[in-house]
Amino acid sequence: MFVPQYCPRCGHALGDAVKFGKTRRVCTNCEFIFFANPKAAAAVWIEHDGQILLVKRGMEPERGKWALPAGFIDFGEDPQEAAIRETLEETGLAITISHLVDVMFDGTTIVIIYAAHMVGGTLTAMDDVDDACWFNAATLPSPAELAFKSTQALVYEWLNHTKP
Amino acid sequence: MFVPQYCPRCGHALGDAVKFGKTRRVCTNCEFIFFANPKAAAAVWIEHDGQILLVKRGMEPERGKWALPAGFIDFGEDPQEAAIRETLEETGLAITISHLVDVMFDGTTIVIIYAAHMVGGTLTAMDDVDDACWFNAATLPSPAELAFKSTQALVYEWLNHTKP
Repeated sequence: MFVPQYCPRCGHALGDAVKFGKTRRVCTNCEFIFFANPKAAAAVWIEHDGQILLVKRGMEPERGKWALPAGFIDFGEDPQEAAIRETLEETGLAITISHLVDVMFDGTTIVIIYAAHMVGGTLTAMDDVDDACWFNAATLPSPAELAFKSTQALVYEWLNHTKP
Repeated sequence: MFVPQYCPRCGHALGDAVKFGKTRRVCTNCEFIFFANPKAAAAVWIEHDGQILLVKRGMEPERGKWALPAGFIDFGEDPQEAAIRETLEETGLAITISHLVDVMFDGTTIVIIYAAHMVGGTLTAMDDVDDACWFNAATLPSPAELAFKSTQALVYEWLNHTKP
């Protein structure tokens, strides 16, 4: 984990001090407290005509594997808007959120997963993905080709529910 | 919103640059990218014998009002563990998480709400809360005494369900 060394407000050296019940990096000059906000991502489960939408990751980690459309939530951004934005950026599809599916944690990142449905756009792999495809139970990538525990868990739950 | 001016890695001045599809603060010396991770909090809905647990906030914002036990999630922390930790810190109660209730967004903070049940401890107001009490439908604080939209929404949903 990255340990900040300098104050982002005044540029002075940071030190350790207990603030709000925890040792945190604090500026010895201006008393700025460096709160380490968590990484959080929004991911989207889009099902259409018995198929689910997956994107082939064009960047590390898990480059080349298939995942749900997803991306990091920015400071001050509504997680639902992040889900809509990332889906548009990666797949060209406009969506509306239907409901919350789950919140998962992979050891570093909080992943908030929403179910959504398409309302427009044309499927096009864009931004940091190399491909974007619809998969049904018969055409799904193998477990080894799926990125992230969250994708795997949801895909296999879905698969078990759709199996006869 | 706070705009960082100095690189937390090398102490050099930051500037604006487009990185990962967005203008971000970037070090002109070491190329550190200042990702602004979101604020995220975990809150806990604990129901016991027809009563819900609320804490009286001892700090701003909403000081003096009643809210669900809750607190900020640290970088790298599991949201469920944050919920358990904050409940113990604020109320002295040990809990286990039963399920995810909802994810809300108040314009700044992502609030992940879990339902939980008590497994031990003795109710004691601690840390940054001034009081911690069980409320039933008849003893609930008035709407004006409830902190945050998330608390209000959940309390009134519960109230409507428990009404005859």
